Amino acid sequence: MNGLTQYATYLENQISGLKLDDEPRNLFDTLKYFLSLGGKRMRPILTLISGEIFSIAKEESIHAALSIELFHNFSLIHDDIMDEAPVRRGKPTVHTKWNSNIALLSGDLLYIEAYQQLVNYTDHRLPLLLKRFNETAIEVCQGQQFDMDFESMETVSESEYIEMIRLKTSVLLGCALEFGAILGNQDEKIRRNLYEFGVSLGIAFQIQDDILDLYGDPELFGKQVGGDVLSNKKTLLFLKAKENAQKNNDDRFRQLTQMTANSHKVEHAKTLFEEIGAKEASLQAMNGYYDHAMGNLEQLEQKGLKTETLRELAKFLITREL
Amino acid sequence: MNGLTQYATYLENQISGLKLDDEPRNLFDTLKYFLSLGGKRMRPILTLISGEIFSIAKEESIHAALSIELFHNFSLIHDDIMDEAPVRRGKPTVHTKWNSNIALLSGDLLYIEAYQQLVNYTDHRLPLLLKRFNETAIEVCQGQQFDMDFESMETVSESEYIEMIRLKTSVLLGCALEFGAILGNQDEKIRRNLYEFGVSLGIAFQIQDDILDLYGDPELFGKQVGGDVLSNKKTLLFLKAKENAQKNNDDRFRQLTQMTANSHKVEHAKTLFEEIGAKEASLQAMNGYYDHAMGNLEQLEQKGLKTETLRELAKFLITREL
Repeated sequence: MNGLTQYATYLENQISGLKLDDEPRNLFDTLKYFLSLGGKRMRPILTLISGEIFSIAKEESIHAALSIELFHNFSLIHDDIMDEAPVRRGKPTVHTKWNSNIALLSGDLLYIEAYQQLVNYTDHRLPLLLKRFNETAIEVCQGQQFDMDFESMETVSESEYIEMIRLKTSVLLGCALEFGAILGNQDEKIRRNLYEFGVSLGIAFQIQDDILDLYGDPELFGKQVGGDVLSNKKTLLFLKAKENAQKNNDDRFRQLTQMTANSHKVEHAKTLFEEIGAKEASLQAMNGYYDHAMGNLEQLEQKGLKTETLRELAKFLITREL
Repeated sequence: MNGLTQYATYLENQISGLKLDDEPRNLFDTLKYFLSLGGKRMRPILTLISGEIFSIAKEESIHAALSIELFHNFSLIHDDIMDEAPVRRGKPTVHTKWNSNIALLSGDLLYIEAYQQLVNYTDHRLPLLLKRFNETAIEVCQGQQFDMDFESMETVSESEYIEMIRLKTSVLLGCALEFGAILGNQDEKIRRNLYEFGVSLGIAFQIQDDILDLYGDPELFGKQVGGDVLSNKKTLLFLKAKENAQKNNDDRFRQLTQMTANSHKVEHAKTLFEEIGAKEASLQAMNGYYDHAMGNLEQLEQKGLKTETLRELAKFLITREL
């Protein structure tokens, strides 16, 4: 994974070197703070890798990569307001450190800066980059609204959940990869394979995240274990458990959702979700999306394209043994 | 002003005919509601008029016009959240009718739809349209932040105030006009004249708005008279009054700012601001920007361009006798 580290370092330098205005301080200090919080920078790395497949130097694909990363950060700032999240990457969120108004406006500003990156492409590639960026951004907003809607809904189907995470988190990975292909003037078929690889990998990653939230090693995972269970969040794990409990007339699922939020509830869920087959079913779903992602890579390989780095990255992101 | 009515009708039809998704309902119903609230549609009309100067049919300039109008509506939805405004155009604001989260996200979405309009220009004009749109949008955000900052500042200078309204409200008028020139493949000098005309007209219009807030006929103005005075808002009128009071050691200004917010305070301000010369000074400033706007039109006319409609519009917007 040496290559990935190099990409990440290059990106971090580009992000910290971004030219932003200074005034008003409340606006730009905020952006600089948030962008300095780091993160895996997975999405822009995908653009750089994808561009490289088509011999686009990172100095050329960097602007597209940054547009994706700035958009992602914009959506995090606004999501944190909506979710009233106090902490992001171990530091106070923008609306906590400043206030909601400044967070709202600095999010807006970051979003414009994302578009401003695209202006670096002044040729025939710009219309398609802009169109795909917009379409993806609309979907991300739709996903966030579905996610908020689900909180107050009694019943959410598995397919509704998958569609929500596809929109909210996965299409941006697809777009990040497609950008490399657009820069490389590739046809729709190749763009589609890369996009599908990204979307499927994104869904697999999100399902893994749901599973790790309950079964992950807290030290490795870096989050409180069981947060989703404590708030009865309708994750795939939760929906599979509900479905299996209904099939088997097993009352333990309903009991779980009514338990007080404490460590006992988390332990109970760990055992129940395993016994009832929800963990296994979620893993199968995750593997299904992973395999679909790999299928798209194979189609690209059959066209003689070098996808080794993407394959490595996928293996790195998705742990097949959980 | 028959021509303007025709433009407005055409725009209203285009806006109500906008193709938007349906799901999630909470997001798109919100947009449709807000866009149906109307407004003068002054900004997109400027783009249509400007385009016509360079023989661009309204069917071609409509997308640029809509991008400006959708951006403007996005900024209103977000401003209303920040200002906690209950009413917009006589109807409940989005965050009042739904909630702040939905307002935030539907604002974001509307902003993306603004960019999506620009994708209709797939040729060499797109990079410049996108660049100028982004630069303007960044300035509008800066203006809104300065406006919020001013609320808690003890002292705001006149030039700081003018810079704030230039950013918050006027550059978008300039951009709306410049878009017509970009579509018409005009050189930078002509683009600049149109932009400057719009910015100066916008500043004059905002100063007029400040004066009308206190001296306007409530029926014609359509707002509660004296709202700015009641909240001690640092408008140009207020700043001029403060400056003149300090010059003349007149204690009545300080007394006014400490008065309870009621109709007596408004009457007191009306008399004081007139006696102390603040109304006259504000009118002079307004006329100065109006003349500057006209100067730019004259330069365009000297190049043989037909600017009659813009001249009419300026006269219609700015009442010289107040």
